[in-house]
Amino acid sequence: MRKVIQPVKGTRDFYPEEMGIRTWIYQTIRNVSESFGYQEWEAPLLETLDLYAAKSGEELVQEQSFVFLDRGGDKIALRPELTPSLARLVAQRQAQLSVPVRWWSFGPFWRYERPQKGRTREFFQWNIDMLGVNTPEADAELIAVAATFFQKVGLTPDKVTILINDRRLMDSELSAIGILAEKKNDVFNLIDRRNKLQYAEWQTYALSLGLSETQVSGLNEILDNSELWRKSTELSRVFNALSAMGLSDYVQYDAKIIRGLLYYTGTVFEAFSPTGDIRRAICGGGRYDNLLADVGGDPMPGVGFAMGDVVITLLLQSLDLIPTGLGKVPAKILVTVFDQESFPASLEIAKELRQNGLDVICYPEATKLGKQFKFGDRISARIVIVSGPDEMKIGSVTIKDLEAGTQQVILRSEAAKYIKDLLIGS
Amino acid sequence: MRKVIQPVKGTRDFYPEEMGIRTWIYQTIRNVSESFGYQEWEAPLLETLDLYAAKSGEELVQEQSFVFLDRGGDKIALRPELTPSLARLVAQRQAQLSVPVRWWSFGPFWRYERPQKGRTREFFQWNIDMLGVNTPEADAELIAVAATFFQKVGLTPDKVTILINDRRLMDSELSAIGILAEKKNDVFNLIDRRNKLQYAEWQTYALSLGLSETQVSGLNEILDNSELWRKSTELSRVFNALSAMGLSDYVQYDAKIIRGLLYYTGTVFEAFSPTGDIRRAICGGGRYDNLLADVGGDPMPGVGFAMGDVVITLLLQSLDLIPTGLGKVPAKILVTVFDQESFPASLEIAKELRQNGLDVICYPEATKLGKQFKFGDRISARIVIVSGPDEMKIGSVTIKDLEAGTQQVILRSEAAKYIKDLLIGS
Repeated sequence: MRKVIQPVKGTRDFYPEEMGIRTWIYQTIRNVSESFGYQEWEAPLLETLDLYAAKSGEELVQEQSFVFLDRGGDKIALRPELTPSLARLVAQRQAQLSVPVRWWSFGPFWRYERPQKGRTREFFQWNIDMLGVNTPEADAELIAVAATFFQKVGLTPDKVTILINDRRLMDSELSAIGILAEKKNDVFNLIDRRNKLQYAEWQTYALSLGLSETQVSGLNEILDNSELWRKSTELSRVFNALSAMGLSDYVQYDAKIIRGLLYYTGTVFEAFSPTGDIRRAICGGGRYDNLLADVGGDPMPGVGFAMGDVVITLLLQSLDLIPTGLGKVPAKILVTVFDQESFPASLEIAKELRQNGLDVICYPEATKLGKQFKFGDRISARIVIVSGPDEMKIGSVTIKDLEAGTQQVILRSEAAKYIKDLLIGS
Repeated sequence: MRKVIQPVKGTRDFYPEEMGIRTWIYQTIRNVSESFGYQEWEAPLLETLDLYAAKSGEELVQEQSFVFLDRGGDKIALRPELTPSLARLVAQRQAQLSVPVRWWSFGPFWRYERPQKGRTREFFQWNIDMLGVNTPEADAELIAVAATFFQKVGLTPDKVTILINDRRLMDSELSAIGILAEKKNDVFNLIDRRNKLQYAEWQTYALSLGLSETQVSGLNEILDNSELWRKSTELSRVFNALSAMGLSDYVQYDAKIIRGLLYYTGTVFEAFSPTGDIRRAICGGGRYDNLLADVGGDPMPGVGFAMGDVVITLLLQSLDLIPTGLGKVPAKILVTVFDQESFPASLEIAKELRQNGLDVICYPEATKLGKQFKFGDRISARIVIVSGPDEMKIGSVTIKDLEAGTQQVILRSEAAKYIKDLLIGS
């Protein structure tokens, strides 16, 4: 047997069924983003490696990026994340843009990681950001966008929780247990791994960073304190705003949320599902107030989040929340071809129905009617039309309603209206 | 001044305005594809170089592909075209698919070419294909899909022509002037360049391929013969089917259309605009009956075409056919924030309006009302809502209709209905 050429490891083939799910997610994202007044945009899929070098975190750039030299010798990256591109585009037109800028997009990204459940090397991601305002209410708006998406896809608060923290609060708490400024990025990294490592392993890592046993125990106290947010005016306003939007059930304070990327400066958040076996974050984001200056723009605050398509799709599938019928053949009307002579008549009928706004397949071959009907069955056609010599003689077509099991000879000029009535009536 | 990091040459930044155009094109493509019963699918954006090596044509693979070694040492290509991926996916599930398969997609591609008007290195492309049937009427359906797209975007037959030919016809015509089988790919390549080179240059190229002067003159006669299609039963049926679908004005025979890719085996077509200064093909495609076997599947015929987003966008812009308002801020309703105390009330009002299906921006900062109104102006908001202490006391909001220049104090519980009536009434 010949061997079919294989796909690249970590990529996915989107057959119509899988594509139907992706398109439904994209459409839901569009509806939610637009309901909050966000405009769709998109960055190139290739960027220079320099763009990420500053702030994306060493692991992401050095270990997880697909990088290649182009024919001109420049280091090009398949983008591993969107925020640096967002900063670049905003910096390019900073004088012309009306702040607050509200932008969203949905597109492909790549990370060279070991493929596993919930993780592919090529994936799609929703990004949504607000720039030009630094208020806790802006942060709350982004969290509300995420929660509203969860509502729309049927993920009720018992199925997903958004955990929220603030890097400024953590910064002052770390100072309080004597952690010096130059150590803080290391300790943020340590906190980020708190739930990713076994406790003993994590503790060893903490001590290896030079923390004293007292500091580790102080850090543990901080991380376990679910009331810590009350010390932060910003977090209090975030929770207050979310309560006003009726979303308190979706959100929860968690001092262990810190986010890996270096550019976060304030509120940070991640969503998880407490049920089921999907442990990875569904989405994550936060406030980044220095990123624009880092790519060469004037200082401008920002807040946003990203949600990949892989984890959310797995979660929705495991909870049986994907609508049925996605990706099916869109046309519910099949025009058959009686014989080669009547082919033009069938094509004409199909065209007339399309001009009336109907989605129509004309069978592309004058083959046995039985075979054509079988095809109609397989694509779940509702209406099948036959136009043979008898029908043509009287300017009519036979319209079969496979659902009702009825058929009717109808004047061609009245076929579109007749079919629309059938489809509406059902 | 600091320097903003530059984008990669040949890529495009899609600010909301440009993204609005792309999304409108994608949406129109979706509507047209679905009206003919095609299902959306998508391949990975990365494929092994092997997939293209067989049939994509040497220039495309060797000179124009972005290729890199992944960390495992495999040669990976940023896909330069979709058809080989289509063949791969169909070959993988050949036994389960219901033929005829009708699939379409819209996604990114890359070619390392010199960027110029109508050509970028990263571009988007509509692909649409029918597999499993080899009839001229199937070929005509694909051409009809292209013509229907042109109709939908306002490209009337005076603005775009689809030129059609058949490789089988050309094959027999070349035989008739004594061109041997092993020379035919060279001569197809020569024909493909007929309109891309100056005549003298083209003639020199012809002679350099080993054609005699008699053969060159015979070839010229073939290429200038606009009635040649009458010799081909297949082309006669293609034109007959297109006539039945009312599309004769869009199509024309042209013996110079041959297409560069090696996998075409029958009907080939390309669309051009006879007006204006955009000389590049708008779309191109044809029949490829051997491709599935080439990637390891069982033999299965196919026909399809591709349309890039760059040329069609330029053409529509030059003809002023792009709808106005694409990419604008979607929300036409702005809820202002009177002061920090009333922030929760404003958030709540915005939420209530969204729950009623309206797209709403809540200003994310308790700043001066004048600044908020100015923002409303800049995003062309139609409705601006104020909820200060006076309104809150009586459970109401002030609703300003910026278009009508009126304002009204309305009970909060009735605000959504009032605004909907305003928007519908206008």
